[in-house]
Amino acid sequence: MSRIPRIVILGAGYGGVVTAIRLQKELNYNEADVTLVNKHDYHYITTHLHMPAAGTDDPKNARVNILKLIDEFKIDFIKATVQEIRPQEKKVILDEGTLSYDYLVIGLGGEPETFGIPGMLEHAMSIRSINSVNFIREHIEYQFAKYKREPHRKELLNFVVGGAGFTGIEFVGELANRIPELCKEFNVDPAEVNIYNVEAAPTILPGFDAELVDYARQLLEDKGVQFRIGVAIKECTEEGVVLASGEEIPSATVVWTGGIRGNRLIEEAGFETMRGRVKVDEYLRAPGHDDVFIIGDGSIFMNPEGRPYPPTAQIAMQQGAATASNLVASIRNSQLKPFKPSIKGTVASLGRGEAIGVVGKYKMRGFVAAMMKKIIDMRYLYIIGGIPLVLRKTKL
Amino acid sequence: MSRIPRIVILGAGYGGVVTAIRLQKELNYNEADVTLVNKHDYHYITTHLHMPAAGTDDPKNARVNILKLIDEFKIDFIKATVQEIRPQEKKVILDEGTLSYDYLVIGLGGEPETFGIPGMLEHAMSIRSINSVNFIREHIEYQFAKYKREPHRKELLNFVVGGAGFTGIEFVGELANRIPELCKEFNVDPAEVNIYNVEAAPTILPGFDAELVDYARQLLEDKGVQFRIGVAIKECTEEGVVLASGEEIPSATVVWTGGIRGNRLIEEAGFETMRGRVKVDEYLRAPGHDDVFIIGDGSIFMNPEGRPYPPTAQIAMQQGAATASNLVASIRNSQLKPFKPSIKGTVASLGRGEAIGVVGKYKMRGFVAAMMKKIIDMRYLYIIGGIPLVLRKTKL
Repeated sequence: MSRIPRIVILGAGYGGVVTAIRLQKELNYNEADVTLVNKHDYHYITTHLHMPAAGTDDPKNARVNILKLIDEFKIDFIKATVQEIRPQEKKVILDEGTLSYDYLVIGLGGEPETFGIPGMLEHAMSIRSINSVNFIREHIEYQFAKYKREPHRKELLNFVVGGAGFTGIEFVGELANRIPELCKEFNVDPAEVNIYNVEAAPTILPGFDAELVDYARQLLEDKGVQFRIGVAIKECTEEGVVLASGEEIPSATVVWTGGIRGNRLIEEAGFETMRGRVKVDEYLRAPGHDDVFIIGDGSIFMNPEGRPYPPTAQIAMQQGAATASNLVASIRNSQLKPFKPSIKGTVASLGRGEAIGVVGKYKMRGFVAAMMKKIIDMRYLYIIGGIPLVLRKTKL
Repeated sequence: MSRIPRIVILGAGYGGVVTAIRLQKELNYNEADVTLVNKHDYHYITTHLHMPAAGTDDPKNARVNILKLIDEFKIDFIKATVQEIRPQEKKVILDEGTLSYDYLVIGLGGEPETFGIPGMLEHAMSIRSINSVNFIREHIEYQFAKYKREPHRKELLNFVVGGAGFTGIEFVGELANRIPELCKEFNVDPAEVNIYNVEAAPTILPGFDAELVDYARQLLEDKGVQFRIGVAIKECTEEGVVLASGEEIPSATVVWTGGIRGNRLIEEAGFETMRGRVKVDEYLRAPGHDDVFIIGDGSIFMNPEGRPYPPTAQIAMQQGAATASNLVASIRNSQLKPFKPSIKGTVASLGRGEAIGVVGKYKMRGFVAAMMKKIIDMRYLYIIGGIPLVLRKTKL
């Protein structure tokens, strides 16, 4: 290459932001041209979104201005929406303009996967961005205000969460804290409100330690959550949900957390995908495209047992760091290193002061687990923005 | 009368609450049986409702628990909705039960008068109760959240206030303060938001001092309010409003403050009414019914020039005090005293730290007027609940 190689990073989620920050640190002056493209001028902390969605924390604590994270003298930032990726032409089409690349990093995140459940896409909300959680929060409050005007409409106070994976359980935990506050604010009898959590798998938090799962379920039931486990949602309508068991739950508020798929742009670009996700090689590259790295929710990376790692923030961040190193290696014509994820642990919040977690060989629950969750959140803020960001965004 | 006379007060608004508090003070032990009936177990400070409606103050500052105002050893309180008043039978039908009375005080407040404007009743909201203002506030916030999901729907950010009387202007003033906060919260460009205030009369605040009216209009225009004065609303639809000038304003939020009428129960009871209001005698009694007092928004009381006093909190409170005295006089068979209102002054708020007012012979505006407004509010709290209530409800 005679000119400086150009690296384009699509998406400023966990993967994209860590890639950018690491590149900014590792690249020498004029060694590459790096451009980060994102729909918004802020990065959001996806693992925190269940709180502003329920209304238990200010959305600004889940949002970080991108220009506070990257150094504009080293990395260009473009606020734009990606329209199309053309790997053959090595081009990305934006809503306003076009970018050429030598290396592309796709970190566009996921989209809700509704598994073809009729009406789910049209009628359910999902926890996926600052705008979407602002909508969920306002929507929930609005139902209380509406109910006071039309007190015969009991269904306005039924809240259905589809899916009892990580996001579903964490959201339900926050909602169970928030509902009593809303009841007080709007003068509503808490006995009138129902929170339902519906999961098709035979357990909540599939894959999590069984003892901790029991603890979580008991705790959430004590907070008033009504579980429907091992029952799929058959249909979602404007009036509520119909379960496979035949039960109908009338509701004006259905939040779907039951599945995730890759961004549609990835399959539209012609990559071979499974539910919009690309099974990447050991260097996180799309098969047949040595210049395209796919990280985060758009990628599938297999563990030694041949099963995909769950798409978590932890994995996305590690993928970002690995991709930055491999980009630098590619530019310098040195040997790329295979990606080796290291799962440090998993903690699921269950609402204020409560959580369950497995960190290393330790199982934890209650206050200790909740503190561990906070430490993990703070560690992430520290990685991307140092101490000032930790202090600014952490509610202790 | 062989038994103790029974006094029933309908409505715990300004008039009803002051009647009850005064009776509780003036009546001797076992001199009368007093029952206060109200739909909610709280009294609300109607003149304050424009703030929680816009979201600039907590609704709890506009709400006072009735049992903190009255002494239950002296006055019975029934939380119930009045279904029917039967003056011939001296009975009041409640949703659950029936009350007989010897003296009745009707202080049921007003209802929005839409002057037959098509669609206004169905599609516009009104500032009339805690529940209704909670709804307006949540509705407005919801439009911002919706707009972020559907940014092509510019009409979501158009807010139309019908009527530029007291309530309309005070609400518009608060809204102009609140909008910039909402823009920040939801990441919306303030230039996208429009506040329209439409008034059929040739001026805002008809009847107010012309110089102060000019001041108010300029101030609100500087805050971004767009006035349409001397133009009636021809129709209100789900899509917005159509003005008599032909102009169409697309909007999902129309708040109607343009008129008030008496409670429909009054005309259904067979009293002679004008827009649901009864022209009462000099003792505030319904003509031909010496046992029925009507106070507040349900009554019309003429000034010496033969024009009705505007229905304000000030008048309602004075009517409550006068009615309590005349009830005591009736029971003791002494001479009733004619009602003589004393207009101390009028102050209209224009949002944080701004107001205009005429008090006695003084005209005031800006900060001084805003302080005067606070003093008037505090004085009312003092009258009904003493110093503790002033301290609890006042935001300084």
